[in-house]
Amino acid sequence: IAAKKVLIVYAHQSSGSFNAAAKNAAVEVLTAQGCTVEVSDLCAMSFKATATAEDIKGDLKNADNVCYLDESKLAWEQGKLSDDITKEQAKLAEADLSLFQFPMYWFSVPGILKGWFDRVLTNGFAFSQEKPYSLETFKNGILNYCGFQVLAPQIFWAPALVDAGELAHMTARPA
Amino acid sequence: IAAKKVLIVYAHQSSGSFNAAAKNAAVEVLTAQGCTVEVSDLCAMSFKATATAEDIKGDLKNADNVCYLDESKLAWEQGKLSDDITKEQAKLAEADLSLFQFPMYWFSVPGILKGWFDRVLTNGFAFSQEKPYSLETFKNGILNYCGFQVLAPQIFWAPALVDAGELAHMTARPA
Repeated sequence: IAAKKVLIVYAHQSSGSFNAAAKNAAVEVLTAQGCTVEVSDLCAMSFKATATAEDIKGDLKNADNVCYLDESKLAWEQGKLSDDITKEQAKLAEADLSLFQFPMYWFSVPGILKGWFDRVLTNGFAFSQEKPYSLETFKNGILNYCGFQVLAPQIFWAPALVDAGELAHMTARPA
Repeated sequence: IAAKKVLIVYAHQSSGSFNAAAKNAAVEVLTAQGCTVEVSDLCAMSFKATATAEDIKGDLKNADNVCYLDESKLAWEQGKLSDDITKEQAKLAEADLSLFQFPMYWFSVPGILKGWFDRVLTNGFAFSQEKPYSLETFKNGILNYCGFQVLAPQIFWAPALVDAGELAHMTARPA
């Protein structure tokens, strides 16, 4: 991987989870390859999961009837987005490669990660269930729309149902 | 409407919004018809939008690797779900009719309402964008799945783009 700076946006609350193991494997391997890896651990950060007027510093354009799309666009132009959003946007801007690591339940994403997409990238996109394994809406409606070149997803199926040997294989480091 | 008890789960932060006007019209008309109307105003309640281990009182079954589906099922059986969830579930159980009132952006739902569905009803369902106006996943994947008989949705298209006369028509009370 030619990328030098990697951002992992990670959404799982248990350090003993398979998700944590997969994230740790990524950090380890990428670091060994010379990358600088930063992890946004959303649960540990208690990242705010809802897009609200509190995301804008100072006066709103229309406080009586808040339109988040209008207000956040204006705040972004004026540098008035809240510090946590600005910080995540800066991490993204610096990253050559971004990984989103999360558990999928019925092909949805955790609320805290939806909140990250809503607040840091773009508000309001849904997540398709019709073609779940391609995650079309996530890929095109959010990531392509925001300018990412999207790589193929790495999906670990049903880690709760496989045995320890298979789990170890899933997170094996390259030889 | 034969319903006597109505629950409106409402997710918009501005009292000056079209959503607020539509919700107020529903409260007014249903009350005039003899219904008891309760509103869960999620933004005003700062309803917690993410499903986390804090939703379970007392010890977890597996604190080292929290599986929310397992833990919340067990906590529900044992009456150990957090007070805010228990309260919303009680409102739902008492209601003859439940209304979900929220702004749609690209046919997604606000994070705070997704959090309500995740925590009060069932965790993890996605929201379909493929057949947006039928909101199939929302209707079948959540509501039918949880035992609701689902009525046809009432969708107000693009209230931000229509004139005052049309807005007034949209929220007009029956004569």
